Amino acid sequence: GLPQVYAGEAPKQGLPPLQVMRYGFPDMGSIKYREGYIMSYDRRNKTANWVCEHLNAERLAVQEAKRDGMAFKEDDTDPELFRARLADYRGSGYDRGHMAPAGNYKWSTKAMEDTFYLSNMSMQVGKGFNRDKWEELESYVRSLTKTNRNVYVCTGPLYLPRQEADGNMYVRYKVVGPSQVAVPTHFFKVAVVEAPNGNLTIQSWVLPNEVIPNDTPLTSFKRPLAEIERRAGFLLYNSIPDKYTRGV
Amino acid sequence: GLPQVYAGEAPKQGLPPLQVMRYGFPDMGSIKYREGYIMSYDRRNKTANWVCEHLNAERLAVQEAKRDGMAFKEDDTDPELFRARLADYRGSGYDRGHMAPAGNYKWSTKAMEDTFYLSNMSMQVGKGFNRDKWEELESYVRSLTKTNRNVYVCTGPLYLPRQEADGNMYVRYKVVGPSQVAVPTHFFKVAVVEAPNGNLTIQSWVLPNEVIPNDTPLTSFKRPLAEIERRAGFLLYNSIPDKYTRGV
Ligand SMILES: [Mg+2]
Ligand SMILES: [Mg+2]
Repeated sequence: GLPQVYAGEAPKQGLPPLQVMRYGFPDMGSIKYREGYIMSYDRRNKTANWVCEHLNAERLAVQEAKRDGMAFKEDDTDPELFRARLADYRGSGYDRGHMAPAGNYKWSTKAMEDTFYLSNMSMQVGKGFNRDKWEELESYVRSLTKTNRNVYVCTGPLYLPRQEADGNMYVRYKVVGPSQVAVPTHFFKVAVVEAPNGNLTIQSWVLPNEVIPNDTPLTSFKRPLAEIERRAGFLLYNSIPDKYTRGV
Repeated sequence: GLPQVYAGEAPKQGLPPLQVMRYGFPDMGSIKYREGYIMSYDRRNKTANWVCEHLNAERLAVQEAKRDGMAFKEDDTDPELFRARLADYRGSGYDRGHMAPAGNYKWSTKAMEDTFYLSNMSMQVGKGFNRDKWEELESYVRSLTKTNRNVYVCTGPLYLPRQEADGNMYVRYKVVGPSQVAVPTHFFKVAVVEAPNGNLTIQSWVLPNEVIPNDTPLTSFKRPLAEIERRAGFLLYNSIPDKYTRGV
């Protein structure tokens, strides 16, 4: 039958189907609702647009899931055309870097297993990044739950422009494997921290996808939220009341 | 209040709000319903993801709208952070290239005016492309209405990888202007042609965003639909019955 798409500011029930969309409505988005996180998958780059999580001390205290033996798996909720494959990461020289980290989900075997979908992975430099500075950031964000009520966190890749020899700005990133999965130039992480008194603060970082010296402080990677939003192409935590600073 | 977002395969009414999305659901998409076309805006690259149209001889015969004096205009339906600006195109060396061409909308002043939003523009090489081979393709697609009942057409930019000197594949594209609007490497156009007997055929092209010699035949740019879908990151006209070829 006809796709259920209607005219107006947004699709509404009760209006006639749109003739212009007679043979299909191109679907950009691929929102995935997992046990412990929610994400948007970028079918063009074959990795996340964003991955949102919620952490608190109560859940992080539960030690139920064991990471050993959990297998990375292709995500069959997307058409084959758009899937990242195990073969893309194998021999690529990059880690299968979790966006929602497995370490946030010890409270549930199912929730931890859900972090092993390739849709939750990005091509990350291993030594010096995924296994070091990036993991330090993940641990730091978890540690925020010790003295706060809730931590909301959103993570994703960036493809940042830089000036080349001709003086112009270019976005340039490698694509690897048979499916040509993008290698992001950077990754962002944004944490909304809810204090015991309910006050909210936002901390946000951009790290380059490269070897980072261990003695570089995490604070040196703090970036304004609006800069991340502009680069990523979506607003983050825009339901935060205006009185809270959306800055570094 | 809380964003209206719920758990499950897709948001459903009746379920409790998702804690993980307590402070906002990042919205990738920006679907715009215009008088004559429907489009998805890419807030990262500040140009379309896709622009869908429906053409037929009856409407194309109407000569009502006059292009002269119609002004290009910024699209204020997106937050300022994500908008392409007049200043981005000015002096860029690129044309403001319509995705939904003004020439398809002589049947309505409002419909033609709607094609002048910058969200419907892409940075196109002017002479030798926008004003020549690309326009030839637009004219060709219009001409299909003469002997067919309906023509459905979808148009958009592509950012195709190519091999560099180190043997690896890279996506690389220029970004220009204060807002750093992307300059696509290629553009696609897909036409679903409905014959008088109801039979459907699909024609699909990919043209490089560069000067193309006038004697190059349009047929040399035909590409399989699946290749365009994989590169663009979405399925096109996937409601077409399976019996019709989705190929060149
Ligand atoms: Mg990791
Ligand atoms: Mg044009």
